[in-house]
Amino acid sequence: MTLQEIADFIGIDCQEKKEITGLNTLLDSNENQLTFLENKKYLSDLKNTKAAAVLVTEENSKEVPSSSIALICDEPYLMLAKISKLFAPNVIEMDGEKPLIGGGTKVMPNVYIGKNSVIGSDCTIMAGAFIGDNVTIGNNTIIYPNVTVYRDCSIGNDCIIHAGTVIGSDGFGFANTKDGKYIKIYQNGNVTIGNDIEIGANSTIDRAVFNSTIIEDGVRIDNLVHIGHNCKISRGSILVAQVGLSGSTTLHPYVVMGGQSATAGHLEIAPFTTIAARSGVTKTIHEPKKQWAGFPLFEHKQWLKLQGKISNLLK
Amino acid sequence: MTLQEIADFIGIDCQEKKEITGLNTLLDSNENQLTFLENKKYLSDLKNTKAAAVLVTEENSKEVPSSSIALICDEPYLMLAKISKLFAPNVIEMDGEKPLIGGGTKVMPNVYIGKNSVIGSDCTIMAGAFIGDNVTIGNNTIIYPNVTVYRDCSIGNDCIIHAGTVIGSDGFGFANTKDGKYIKIYQNGNVTIGNDIEIGANSTIDRAVFNSTIIEDGVRIDNLVHIGHNCKISRGSILVAQVGLSGSTTLHPYVVMGGQSATAGHLEIAPFTTIAARSGVTKTIHEPKKQWAGFPLFEHKQWLKLQGKISNLLK
Amino acid sequence: MTLQEIADFIGIDCQEKKEITGLNTLLDSNENQLTFLENKKYLSDLKNTKAAAVLVTEENSKEVPSSSIALICDEPYLMLAKISKLFAPNVIEMDGEKPLIGGGTKVMPNVYIGKNSVIGSDCTIMAGAFIGDNVTIGNNTIIYPNVTVYRDCSIGNDCIIHAGTVIGSDGFGFANTKDGKYIKIYQNGNVTIGNDIEIGANSTIDRAVFNSTIIEDGVRIDNLVHIGHNCKISRGSILVAQVGLSGSTTLHPYVVMGGQSATAGHLEIAPFTTIAARSGVTKTIHEPKKQWAGFPLFEHKQWLKLQGKISNLLK
Repeated sequence: MTLQEIADFIGIDCQEKKEITGLNTLLDSNENQLTFLENKKYLSDLKNTKAAAVLVTEENSKEVPSSSIALICDEPYLMLAKISKLFAPNVIEMDGEKPLIGGGTKVMPNVYIGKNSVIGSDCTIMAGAFIGDNVTIGNNTIIYPNVTVYRDCSIGNDCIIHAGTVIGSDGFGFANTKDGKYIKIYQNGNVTIGNDIEIGANSTIDRAVFNSTIIEDGVRIDNLVHIGHNCKISRGSILVAQVGLSGSTTLHPYVVMGGQSATAGHLEIAPFTTIAARSGVTKTIHEPKKQWAGFPLFEHKQWLKLQGKISNLLK
Repeated sequence: MTLQEIADFIGIDCQEKKEITGLNTLLDSNENQLTFLENKKYLSDLKNTKAAAVLVTEENSKEVPSSSIALICDEPYLMLAKISKLFAPNVIEMDGEKPLIGGGTKVMPNVYIGKNSVIGSDCTIMAGAFIGDNVTIGNNTIIYPNVTVYRDCSIGNDCIIHAGTVIGSDGFGFANTKDGKYIKIYQNGNVTIGNDIEIGANSTIDRAVFNSTIIEDGVRIDNLVHIGHNCKISRGSILVAQVGLSGSTTLHPYVVMGGQSATAGHLEIAPFTTIAARSGVTKTIHEPKKQWAGFPLFEHKQWLKLQGKISNLLK
Repeated sequence: MTLQEIADFIGIDCQEKKEITGLNTLLDSNENQLTFLENKKYLSDLKNTKAAAVLVTEENSKEVPSSSIALICDEPYLMLAKISKLFAPNVIEMDGEKPLIGGGTKVMPNVYIGKNSVIGSDCTIMAGAFIGDNVTIGNNTIIYPNVTVYRDCSIGNDCIIHAGTVIGSDGFGFANTKDGKYIKIYQNGNVTIGNDIEIGANSTIDRAVFNSTIIEDGVRIDNLVHIGHNCKISRGSILVAQVGLSGSTTLHPYVVMGGQSATAGHLEIAPFTTIAARSGVTKTIHEPKKQWAGFPLFEHKQWLKLQGKISNLLK
């Protein structure tokens, strides 16, 4: 789709015929992608963007680098939401190749496998599983019953996905209009799941808005865990039951999140951090190998001490 | 079913042949419905009921208005539970019309659509979805894989229901017997979902015990959210992942509930209220447009101040 | 499998040809089972084990009773994990008898029922349900759509299992290697669900690592509840929505757990205890019939008093 066509779609005048292949963040965009700036906090990213064009307010448009085209509008984030629909793939592909199923793989009855999907050897795909279009699954992976894998996601070798888990559902993203409507930001990314990963029952891992939600090798995820869009769960991390990660949370390697703990979004947790059960993390944790607890969060020893002080209030 | 038949079923003497069409609350009952009073707190409602008959203790029976018949019993709530089974529809309808499917609607394999159900045009019903009997779905709605919609529920136009979500499961209701058994209160209501609503993956919305659990236009619900029976989520409200709403919670328009927050039941939250992540609401919030946090709940600024005071205990 | 074959598998020298039928804990093992000791806390259990053999470090091997054989190794728990795979049943049985379905039982389309499974009379098994191999279901039980029951589990009479619930998924268990890999402990036990039990939508009940996760008669479980492996939920207990029980939690009869409350693992809660919504239980509760609240947990009245004291900090 050309930049001109996109601009026309949102009622902006732009004569550029440059072909745009997708949407992305300021820093991750390549020279064929469109990006946006809504929040001034990211002005420094704007200066470094390689994007073909930027949705931007007039006020901020002076900072658009000369290599990019400024698409000036009042509500860049809302315009991005509207444009995201143009790049959304079909919910179901009607055309495409039949799925390829590797040797030794068992596919039970009542399984749907989409167009252009490739499943490796020695897998087990159990009854009621849904494998969307353009999904790849490695070797020796077990997909338990009634699992849903949305289109374009990938799962590696030696994984176990327990029943009812959903991989690749849309991230929770929308822009507000001034009259109180929510315009969906189509989640055109995917989920990539590495090797040797076990995910419990009825967990949900949302697909990325751009690029990928990433689960690295060796991760262990329990039941009823929620992982928001664009999270990165690095290798060896452990998420106990009912954990909730907001969007764009990065867990560095070997982070342990206790049961029912959670994170606010857009933060990082240092390697080998342990978050106690039922804790809430609202800021990036920089120092590795520490234990934390509570909400608000304290170092675990401090939290225990604090609970002692609090209970003294009863005396 | 006549009042006499109902009375016979629970061993009460009543000769009235009046036809009873269902059960309802004191205030919502019409003149063909049966209601009950267990808790004296609702005596003023009793005086205003239009119900055909009321299950009531002898003590409270004097307050039954002359337009209603008093069915006197020791345990009205338990009797209601027993009677609720008489009005429960079939789990599966064997008779009835084949479903009607509108033009342009795609129904994938392994989908079940029940008797008398009507699906509009340009919908997508994905593999493994279950659409029960007597369900209506509007136009241009997407039902993702392995979604379950129980019988009698309705979903409007332009909705997106993500994989694994359950709409219309029974509310959590039962009466105790003196010897420690739980008698199910059949949940004979339904769920009504308006237009332009997106619901995430593996969420659950229980059907009403009487009448409807209501999700109004424009609502956004994230993953793994629980909505109890008889809740009303008014237009434009947003429920982030892992929120839990107890039964009969009313969210007025444009309420935002942060991740893992929750409400006790039978309360209301004023319009444009924001509840921070992980907060617990136990009382009605009357004043609109305020921010709240914590458990117990405080105004957000007060909660932040309080956390400062608490952390001072460590000094 | 002989003890010699097992020892060979993990590179230990042992010439014993004794047939080993499975793995179990120190105290629950019979004379044909293999057990392990990793944590010195359980040395007294070691002295009382009836197991055929014990995986044990050299240091602790002197305490192995003369009736048992010591399999000396550096990392007994890790060795147990490796051996657990040898005893894991097939994910899907290819051989075995067709399921037996009792009179009056309705099985909807798109249902899978495994080998050697037995379903009683007057049940309803709804579309998209998965009933694994060797499952038994009693009479008059309803399995709603898209429920998954893993192999070897049992469900009694007069139960209702709501849509999307998963029964018998693997417990969250693995041993660490020194180089940061997680070795799965195969969960070779099952889940047994008694009579007159209702379980809400999208809940998850994990199978036991050894023996059974047990749900006793009359229990009521709401939506999105997580029950870890080897829990025992005694008769009449009530678990409200989004409760999370860590592994090996025992609820004695008639315990009530409020919404979003949780337990750490390996603890017991006395009969007729009430745990308020959003509380966290980290220690065994010995005294019956008390109310508790908060995290850390206090008696409910004390917790209310404490919240008053805390809010006074704002003055």
